[in-house]
Amino acid sequence: MKKNLLKILVLSTWALFAQAQNLIPVYLDDTQLIEARVEDALARMILEEKIAMIHAQSKFSSPGVSRLGIPELWMTDGPHGIRPEVLWDEWDQAGWTNDSCIAFPALSCLSSSWDKNLALLYGRSIGEEARYRNKTVLLGPGVNLYRSPLNGRNFEYMGEDPYLASQMVVPYVKGVQQNGVAACVKHYALNNQETDRHGVNVVVSDRALYEIYLPAFKAAVQEGEAWAIMGAYGKYKGQQCCHNEYLLKDILRDEWDFDGVVISDWGGVHQTEQAIFNGLDLEYGTWTDGLTMGKTNAYDAYYLAAPYYKMIKEGKVGTKELDEKVRNILRLSFRTAMNRNKPYGSFGTDKHAKASREIAEGGIVLLKNDNDLLPISLKSNTRIAVIGENAIKMMTVGGGSSSLKVKYEISPLEGIKNRVGDAVEVVYARGYVGDAESDYNGVKSGQDLHDNRTAEELLKEAIEVAKKADVVIFIGGLNKSKHQDCEGSDRLTLDLPYNQNNIITELAKVNKKLVFINISGNAVAMPFVKKVPAIVQGWYLGSETGNALASVLMGDVNPSGKLSFTFPVTIEDNSAEAIGEFGLEGEVHYKEDIFVGYRYNDKEKIKALFPFGHGLSYTTFNYGKITADSNVMNVDGSITLNIPITNTGSRDGAEVVQLYVQDVKSTLVRPMKELKGFEKVFLKAGKTKVVSFTLTKEALSYFDDVKHEWIAESGKFTLYIGTSSEDIKQTFSFKLTK
Amino acid sequence: MKKNLLKILVLSTWALFAQAQNLIPVYLDDTQLIEARVEDALARMILEEKIAMIHAQSKFSSPGVSRLGIPELWMTDGPHGIRPEVLWDEWDQAGWTNDSCIAFPALSCLSSSWDKNLALLYGRSIGEEARYRNKTVLLGPGVNLYRSPLNGRNFEYMGEDPYLASQMVVPYVKGVQQNGVAACVKHYALNNQETDRHGVNVVVSDRALYEIYLPAFKAAVQEGEAWAIMGAYGKYKGQQCCHNEYLLKDILRDEWDFDGVVISDWGGVHQTEQAIFNGLDLEYGTWTDGLTMGKTNAYDAYYLAAPYYKMIKEGKVGTKELDEKVRNILRLSFRTAMNRNKPYGSFGTDKHAKASREIAEGGIVLLKNDNDLLPISLKSNTRIAVIGENAIKMMTVGGGSSSLKVKYEISPLEGIKNRVGDAVEVVYARGYVGDAESDYNGVKSGQDLHDNRTAEELLKEAIEVAKKADVVIFIGGLNKSKHQDCEGSDRLTLDLPYNQNNIITELAKVNKKLVFINISGNAVAMPFVKKVPAIVQGWYLGSETGNALASVLMGDVNPSGKLSFTFPVTIEDNSAEAIGEFGLEGEVHYKEDIFVGYRYNDKEKIKALFPFGHGLSYTTFNYGKITADSNVMNVDGSITLNIPITNTGSRDGAEVVQLYVQDVKSTLVRPMKELKGFEKVFLKAGKTKVVSFTLTKEALSYFDDVKHEWIAESGKFTLYIGTSSEDIKQTFSFKLTK
Repeated sequence: MKKNLLKILVLSTWALFAQAQNLIPVYLDDTQLIEARVEDALARMILEEKIAMIHAQSKFSSPGVSRLGIPELWMTDGPHGIRPEVLWDEWDQAGWTNDSCIAFPALSCLSSSWDKNLALLYGRSIGEEARYRNKTVLLGPGVNLYRSPLNGRNFEYMGEDPYLASQMVVPYVKGVQQNGVAACVKHYALNNQETDRHGVNVVVSDRALYEIYLPAFKAAVQEGEAWAIMGAYGKYKGQQCCHNEYLLKDILRDEWDFDGVVISDWGGVHQTEQAIFNGLDLEYGTWTDGLTMGKTNAYDAYYLAAPYYKMIKEGKVGTKELDEKVRNILRLSFRTAMNRNKPYGSFGTDKHAKASREIAEGGIVLLKNDNDLLPISLKSNTRIAVIGENAIKMMTVGGGSSSLKVKYEISPLEGIKNRVGDAVEVVYARGYVGDAESDYNGVKSGQDLHDNRTAEELLKEAIEVAKKADVVIFIGGLNKSKHQDCEGSDRLTLDLPYNQNNIITELAKVNKKLVFINISGNAVAMPFVKKVPAIVQGWYLGSETGNALASVLMGDVNPSGKLSFTFPVTIEDNSAEAIGEFGLEGEVHYKEDIFVGYRYNDKEKIKALFPFGHGLSYTTFNYGKITADSNVMNVDGSITLNIPITNTGSRDGAEVVQLYVQDVKSTLVRPMKELKGFEKVFLKAGKTKVVSFTLTKEALSYFDDVKHEWIAESGKFTLYIGTSSEDIKQTFSFKLTK
Repeated sequence: MKKNLLKILVLSTWALFAQAQNLIPVYLDDTQLIEARVEDALARMILEEKIAMIHAQSKFSSPGVSRLGIPELWMTDGPHGIRPEVLWDEWDQAGWTNDSCIAFPALSCLSSSWDKNLALLYGRSIGEEARYRNKTVLLGPGVNLYRSPLNGRNFEYMGEDPYLASQMVVPYVKGVQQNGVAACVKHYALNNQETDRHGVNVVVSDRALYEIYLPAFKAAVQEGEAWAIMGAYGKYKGQQCCHNEYLLKDILRDEWDFDGVVISDWGGVHQTEQAIFNGLDLEYGTWTDGLTMGKTNAYDAYYLAAPYYKMIKEGKVGTKELDEKVRNILRLSFRTAMNRNKPYGSFGTDKHAKASREIAEGGIVLLKNDNDLLPISLKSNTRIAVIGENAIKMMTVGGGSSSLKVKYEISPLEGIKNRVGDAVEVVYARGYVGDAESDYNGVKSGQDLHDNRTAEELLKEAIEVAKKADVVIFIGGLNKSKHQDCEGSDRLTLDLPYNQNNIITELAKVNKKLVFINISGNAVAMPFVKKVPAIVQGWYLGSETGNALASVLMGDVNPSGKLSFTFPVTIEDNSAEAIGEFGLEGEVHYKEDIFVGYRYNDKEKIKALFPFGHGLSYTTFNYGKITADSNVMNVDGSITLNIPITNTGSRDGAEVVQLYVQDVKSTLVRPMKELKGFEKVFLKAGKTKVVSFTLTKEALSYFDDVKHEWIAESGKFTLYIGTSSEDIKQTFSFKLTK
């Protein structure tokens, strides 16, 4: 709020003048600064209007001030597309026919593109869709850190590294908000498992909190200037995150100076007094069957409705906090619905479909490609076997609140068929039958994937098909059913479900030219890895799924995605499982502390199945020697280094050049290395570009949780430039001085 | 369109310049004139988008161009309040809790206020409500002329006189449209009965059409600059009015230069080819259970949907007409949803309730007041009997598409009780039980007015209550049930229903201080008139019904309304019944021609029960002598006359000074007199104001249907200044010269 004080002073003279001239009210005067408009509107509101404004009136809306013309707020899930309209007070779809959206790839795919331009394109595109549908707030993006591959909601998030997630979330937020639609970054904070998600208390060190779990939120708020943030379901320090003094007041408001709206996750509020005093602004989803004070409107029973009103009326609490909540909501209105200059948006367009495909193609990761099995030549392969349920399963539906009603979704099988045309025969076998679709919150896909055959019959058919094919593409992985990748439940195992390990192993026996496309938002175990020459991480890719996969498979697109999280060999290789706690009810201790993801692999020297940052290309890249402007850096200065990258293959392609930092000797134990820079460079075959990185002390600091401050310690630092966290190409050392 | 040609030429230079500068597209450039934006948007649209835009997608919405960011259109019934949200494709309410509106008085009340300021206030207020609810088009006002008191929908219209309706509709339209919401004037034209309303063919002379039935529409379009108009259900010259070459093309487009959108009444389209060529732009409500071309979306089966598309694709019709429809719709979008400067509206406010009450109080007509029974003194009357079902019946619900879900409605009984307070005893007896509420289109009031008693028991109770009271207020009349005042059916008789004649007669026997408040939107027969000393025409008054009535009854407000239509003694005194035809199926002949309402009474010297323009006051007014600037007027000049009006009583009050014109001798037979001016003057007790009227040839002309032109014939004209069409206070004659 502090930064706004000056604004208010500066404009007060003009505001008073304009009012004296009996012009339009200040709050309706577009020439006024927002803070003056907020104060003017607030001063006109009565208590009942203020109370109404801070809690929902329906599943996805909350009141404005109808008397003053201040519009209602309308929320939409996110983060991968605009959720279809639901009934006023039920999760059932309202049956509108104008709300079939373009589905964008899941955020786990976006973060694996390591492409900030794509993040901006994503945010701008989905923001346009939200704007056209007259939504005020998009409930996304999600940046809960990837701590364990068993977390059911990882597919909605941006991976295991705080720097990568920070870099990717900022352009997404900016892109959304260019449309006059607020991004609502979620779920703040520590919502790293779905088990007991409403009740679990997270015990984590301040250091891990600041270094690992908060940076992406901080970047979204401070660099992205997000206008809204969503409180998480669980508890921290024994207090619900939706009204958590430490997270919301001390950190978000006081340390980060957040002037947007804190919205509860749906049903995340549990107590009136904490909701009043601990920084929450807007309560949604609490319940809709409660009654209070003799009224029949269940929304009156919300913690910030009648109970709060009663406390004010009885003099038990004042209205200072209420006014602050209303200020925050008004400010959001002036930034969104009441911003007359906002564009009009667009919805379900070819342009968005194209953007969706571009993001999908940029995020697909080529994990393995022995003997250059990929791309598939359509000249030498005339019969392609496609096997696996995920080749035909609709994946934009299910998985929880991010489920969509799409204008269309190209399945992998359709995409491949469309791409190869009539010249090549594509034979399909299902291979296995997975769980029926998720019906989380009543969302159904309308797919009929019923199959009466036994597992043996399906496997037998698949083997026959594979035998006769020139090349076999097995499209499996997880899906969005319960315990796969789905809100509300965690995975039970790192293994692939539905006996896929066995199916893949059997297929590998009968056809050596086997490609495995893993559709998931999480790492999976691959005990068959050595038997399968080509493996692709396919994500949930949205409307253009099949087209994007086909482009990569056939080589129209040269894959350039890099894993945004580690694929461990076994679940025991994951630190949350090995030394921390995960998936418990009641309380979980993040004992692994800052050693999350590759930080743990580095520390324990555990080789990953596929490491963080890993991803192959159909071309090859050479990393030249690092040059730097100095080998000494003052703590208040910076250091810049350059490294030439050359495309040494025969295809155009893109490489993600990754910069990791090591504090060689430090007071507190630090990770072997941490990502502090990256650049995705597109290189024509044979071409070279120099990639440049500039580091300041922020890249060198750790968080001292006793002193409660970031510290960059003098001494030696080593920089690693690599193509993954395990594949370092060049190093450079320098000294940090005071 | 002609007037826009110049605009296009003027701005084309700037438009080309702006485009050359590679600025935002012309259609999104607010600095461009609308015509340039329309042309630019049109040029970007593909055929499928154009076809989609010209027919509904749901009960009350139609597509914009989601690709280009052009918003959808959202319609709302009108004309007395904002209809609650309904489900996408069903009439059932959607169960939202943010859509309880303020109900305004029925338009029959508004027109009886004879107050243009109130019409502006009405339009502005309801427009604000529509705007806050994000509606693009308000389906109203209705200006079908009051031809017969049996027409079930007269309550939604503005009375029997074309001049009065014209004067009142213009400010209503302007008020609505100040909010960036289009008024949709309805139902164009000749929808003067509900019987066989979809099929009946009206046979009427051109003269009656131009002189009686069209002027209010013409004024709405030309003076009000209405942005939309709704085609009527019935037929004219054997062709449906929604795609009527004569009404829509020849008159509306060519003669009146209308550049807005012609919207069909819901289900008013019956034929594709006529809908293409005869001036309709936008088809709504046709049906929703049709299937065509193998698609499951019933809206594809609309006449202007797949069938039109097919004809274009097969080359049977061109796209010139389609482009013109799209132009009209785009123009409306730029005037409404895409007008960035529109205000934000407001909804369900005290301000609107106050406006509603003010309009109600201005429109209530004191028909009779023998011995100054009214206003009721609360000093000398300590027990008031209120009798009649309409004292407790909710009247904002029912009656068809104008039915509302209101924030509140003060019943007459509540209003009276609130007003008199504890000092006076109010005893209620129901007197009779009417029909259960209308459930037209599934709208229910939620009232439980069940009563098991017999008619005899109810009457007996009423008589007992009346006997013991100092004064009796009988509140009866019609209601909004079928055959009373209700869309979809006409009345069966001029008589009051539910044996009210008898009840009133019996009450008059036991208490001489009897006030009859007639709640209706139509004239009723009053065979008891001589036995009842005080009679009030109470209309359907909206949310503030009871408060407004109580104000008038107790004298807080001095009544100033004047009937906007004639109350005949018997139905045979109405020209449509006496010499015309009414309520037939198949075809009706308007044989009474121009002699509608008081024009017929004048011609046949039939005394009305209460004449057009009649309305008493609690004060008295004196009409001084007319002075004029000349007694000769050139046909291209004007004549101005002045008349001093004095409030000669002891209360402040308002008088509606009415000016009627007589063409003393004319080639074609003309009415004895026609209203051509009025002014509502508010006068403090004892004060005088000079009312001034200026007439031009328009006020003196008739429509010659052979020459197809308006003619002001030279010769003598007499002007009548009066307080009703039967109570003329002053006359003045002059000569019109060429």
